[in-house]
Amino acid sequence: MYSKSELEQFVKQAKQYARYGKVADYIPALGKANPNDLSIAIYTRDGSVIAAGDTTDKVTLQSISKIIALALVLIDHGEKEVFQKVGMEPTGDPFHSIAKLEEVQPAKPLNPMINAGALAVTHMISGASVNERFQRLLQFVRKLAGNPEISYSKEVAKSEFETAFLNRSLCYFLKQHGIINEDVEELMDLYTKQCAIEMTCIDLARIGLVFAMDGRDPFTDEQIMPLDVARICKTFMVTCGMYNASGEFAIKIGIPAKSGVSGGILAAVPGRFGIGIFGPALDDKGNSITGMKLLELLSKTYSLSIF
Amino acid sequence: MYSKSELEQFVKQAKQYARYGKVADYIPALGKANPNDLSIAIYTRDGSVIAAGDTTDKVTLQSISKIIALALVLIDHGEKEVFQKVGMEPTGDPFHSIAKLEEVQPAKPLNPMINAGALAVTHMISGASVNERFQRLLQFVRKLAGNPEISYSKEVAKSEFETAFLNRSLCYFLKQHGIINEDVEELMDLYTKQCAIEMTCIDLARIGLVFAMDGRDPFTDEQIMPLDVARICKTFMVTCGMYNASGEFAIKIGIPAKSGVSGGILAAVPGRFGIGIFGPALDDKGNSITGMKLLELLSKTYSLSIF
Amino acid sequence: MYSKSELEQFVKQAKQYARYGKVADYIPALGKANPNDLSIAIYTRDGSVIAAGDTTDKVTLQSISKIIALALVLIDHGEKEVFQKVGMEPTGDPFHSIAKLEEVQPAKPLNPMINAGALAVTHMISGASVNERFQRLLQFVRKLAGNPEISYSKEVAKSEFETAFLNRSLCYFLKQHGIINEDVEELMDLYTKQCAIEMTCIDLARIGLVFAMDGRDPFTDEQIMPLDVARICKTFMVTCGMYNASGEFAIKIGIPAKSGVSGGILAAVPGRFGIGIFGPALDDKGNSITGMKLLELLSKTYSLSIF
Amino acid sequence: MYSKSELEQFVKQAKQYARYGKVADYIPALGKANPNDLSIAIYTRDGSVIAAGDTTDKVTLQSISKIIALALVLIDHGEKEVFQKVGMEPTGDPFHSIAKLEEVQPAKPLNPMINAGALAVTHMISGASVNERFQRLLQFVRKLAGNPEISYSKEVAKSEFETAFLNRSLCYFLKQHGIINEDVEELMDLYTKQCAIEMTCIDLARIGLVFAMDGRDPFTDEQIMPLDVARICKTFMVTCGMYNASGEFAIKIGIPAKSGVSGGILAAVPGRFGIGIFGPALDDKGNSITGMKLLELLSKTYSLSIF
Repeated sequence: MYSKSELEQFVKQAKQYARYGKVADYIPALGKANPNDLSIAIYTRDGSVIAAGDTTDKVTLQSISKIIALALVLIDHGEKEVFQKVGMEPTGDPFHSIAKLEEVQPAKPLNPMINAGALAVTHMISGASVNERFQRLLQFVRKLAGNPEISYSKEVAKSEFETAFLNRSLCYFLKQHGIINEDVEELMDLYTKQCAIEMTCIDLARIGLVFAMDGRDPFTDEQIMPLDVARICKTFMVTCGMYNASGEFAIKIGIPAKSGVSGGILAAVPGRFGIGIFGPALDDKGNSITGMKLLELLSKTYSLSIF
Repeated sequence: MYSKSELEQFVKQAKQYARYGKVADYIPALGKANPNDLSIAIYTRDGSVIAAGDTTDKVTLQSISKIIALALVLIDHGEKEVFQKVGMEPTGDPFHSIAKLEEVQPAKPLNPMINAGALAVTHMISGASVNERFQRLLQFVRKLAGNPEISYSKEVAKSEFETAFLNRSLCYFLKQHGIINEDVEELMDLYTKQCAIEMTCIDLARIGLVFAMDGRDPFTDEQIMPLDVARICKTFMVTCGMYNASGEFAIKIGIPAKSGVSGGILAAVPGRFGIGIFGPALDDKGNSITGMKLLELLSKTYSLSIF
Repeated sequence: MYSKSELEQFVKQAKQYARYGKVADYIPALGKANPNDLSIAIYTRDGSVIAAGDTTDKVTLQSISKIIALALVLIDHGEKEVFQKVGMEPTGDPFHSIAKLEEVQPAKPLNPMINAGALAVTHMISGASVNERFQRLLQFVRKLAGNPEISYSKEVAKSEFETAFLNRSLCYFLKQHGIINEDVEELMDLYTKQCAIEMTCIDLARIGLVFAMDGRDPFTDEQIMPLDVARICKTFMVTCGMYNASGEFAIKIGIPAKSGVSGGILAAVPGRFGIGIFGPALDDKGNSITGMKLLELLSKTYSLSIF
Repeated sequence: MYSKSELEQFVKQAKQYARYGKVADYIPALGKANPNDLSIAIYTRDGSVIAAGDTTDKVTLQSISKIIALALVLIDHGEKEVFQKVGMEPTGDPFHSIAKLEEVQPAKPLNPMINAGALAVTHMISGASVNERFQRLLQFVRKLAGNPEISYSKEVAKSEFETAFLNRSLCYFLKQHGIINEDVEELMDLYTKQCAIEMTCIDLARIGLVFAMDGRDPFTDEQIMPLDVARICKTFMVTCGMYNASGEFAIKIGIPAKSGVSGGILAAVPGRFGIGIFGPALDDKGNSITGMKLLELLSKTYSLSIF
């Protein structure tokens, strides 16, 4: 299908947009990234990987982890219970916004991709302790990526834990309204570790492939998550996966995808392949500017939109 | 594929939910509908139609017209020009909301499916007079439905024209911010006629089929709208087509669809068929409660979700 | 008390702030004003007038008219009826804001000093026609100012009538919610004439004096409005009279006052005197920047704060 | 002036409104109050006290403490520094609202009477430790009330500390935006103790008298706070002292006052006397319903409005 040289050509084109973006600086540890980095891997169902850029670069998941944690709690608790604590509607607001929580009754986060909703989801990860809950999530991530080496960046987790005042504000707001009922510092410990899980774009692509294959790992033939869970996750990727640029992304690119402020993007082309991207130059909505461009080139060239 | 008797069984099941809804009463002429009515037609690419309920019942398009007007102005002006006046992002707000317009800079409606955005779209329908613009839209609708008999309800148009104070409020807000620059009463004349175009669920299904076939009429083989226009319209149907229940609809049903407060729903199952529904009992967000249930039964039974 | 020379000194000081403001340009006819103009008159209960600047300059009332129209409708209809259509609470929002109307239930304007509330008030001015209602208001203004020559600027009224799209948006929003029920164009005709009533700072000062004297004209000894009406008006001047800078104005200056985007300010020092100011250079909230400075100098020097 | 028997008559009348209110139940320790209790004390400048109801009942200050803490930090830091962290504008929102903080730039609380602003004020109370800061505040309160016995309710402080999730949410929001920079749990410790300071209505009345006398204690002749500080505090009492019913209170009653959800009200009739009230039945905005009625009777009967 796609050749490595063509992919490298696309990367070169997309990199020209790095100048219009900037790396996330509100999380100190992320501010060190090089905005000109850009790597991509495409993992196909027959096991071949086409990649470009430095695929040994590691990226922390950040908001990408939201979609994986959602899959885990949907497996743990089922749709009904999960959607009692978090809604299904996209919002036109930034991901960290708190205002809408005050407007709607009851004060349920509108969807699991904004921070408030993601915190409610992480709260639902089962386990006897923060450590046990984190290990369950980490095992799930490793299985999805088929890579038992995946771990998390202690530095990034620590950096976020120390500065995540807005997320604490959201947590206490949710606690006030009965959406969460655990100790906020424990939840923040779990959430910042979750966000700090790190991997290469190849790992990301492999996880994308599992979503693309409706939850089944095509290599082990294991159904890692039920088809319905994979479907729900892909739907959220389309309606809310790219922050408050999701609508535009759906129109222009049309591939289920989830981004993180680290510059990572996980995408799933249904039935065909998974895509992992790492490009830390962000646009003003928090999406990788080079990564978006790269996906646009791929989608336009190969008609990958699901619409 | 689907048998008429099975479809009638589904209709019977769905009708039981009519008691939880109520007909739109804010538009006087719509208040006369019978909440227990429910009709559906499925139009397949080979020309067969399966239907249930009274398929001679006519429904006014109301918000369904938004997606058709959007297709027309995209053909007329191209993506770039259209999206200078209206955005692409779903909102978590009700369709008639004005508050978000004040929050965002510039004051561009967030998407063409909320009323503010739809008014901006209708404003862009080309023509020398209201009448000429309306005739162009009507011809487009007739061609999409393959039915030259389609017209509009003068009674409904008049009823809405006389009571649409909120839409006038939105128009003047948009005029203040330079999104529209025509006479508001003329725009309201055009818009209320557009909303009052009426047809049967079979007509609706046939229009849905054209979207499902990427803009091509499978019977005349004419490409009525470019593939890209059909794709953009289907994307908006998924992200914003069912008012502020679009997210939940995408999760639970996953079919591109657009509803109206008359109780109509137009749906497009990509590459396969169009669906038209008329069930005037509405839920509190303005969607046909029986129509939604019917689509859910169909989607679950036949795995119609695009996700 | 105050000498003319001292007042002239204050005017000179205040004028230096003109450079930080700019004249209203959203109403074309106001854009022609000279930002360096500044005139003031102080009208005392014994009939003496101290003035500085060119006191023959005329200023249109704009938002200052809101407090006079409020007095008239309170006389016409009484507190109870008036406050069924408009609230008593200050807001932190700009005067033309529409968002809060959507948040609160019922959709009653929060107070009569924001545009939405002022439109509801003007709607309540009694009379058989727009002309009759306007003449009643004009007679009331003339009596308050003791000046039968006062009229309105046809040019300014026309200019505002042609461009007041935002006010029309507010009107239709209020009409939708049953706050007003007259023809919007007629209300706009009346409202823009009301805003275009013009007078000198001496006239303004004399009207301020009537409020300061609890509604009694100290020269004719006529009680032009009941004490309670004067009291209510002065209270609104303090809590909402200076747009969304009213709180700061109350802290720093503490004199009941109402401003307009023409650069006029009407102020009432209870029991003592009325003040009229005209200084068209506005700050970013719509208040005369030189006028505010002038009042601050007066208030600090002579301890005029009511607090 | 007022006779005790007349005051007792007013209390009897006002008590009839207790049935329309209810005691605060979101703070568990306050939920035990008897909604039918109502006591009042009027402290005059010559030292006489007229009281009615059970004046040995103690009330915790709750939001009343906001105006006292504001006076203390204005003394400590001066106007300029204080108003860099908190604004001067009333809002139309409930006292615990967070939404407006997100709308305005920079994210400075609109005024010191809403919770967000009060937390910013308490943050500014100087001292080496929470205990030292609280002791300073307590000494200030004791001096204002002329009562060295005043202390705080450990039970109420503990109850609020354990349940104040919304205030923690506000604190972290403010910390994110640089308005506060101390440990949130320490600030909550200080703030909940401040709110739990308790006293009788006689103590409240005496503090009200100090404000009424422009900061001077008429019995010791000590100027406890500068005149400007007293003036600023009284201005805030008028524009924002009664939550989002302040505007209506100013219109109907017109006395500078501050209420708390414990049912306390502190009022200051300038130059004349202080009033303390305790009536725990609250209206839906958080003000004592019987206390408001009582003040309305007093204001109407004796023309106490400052307007």
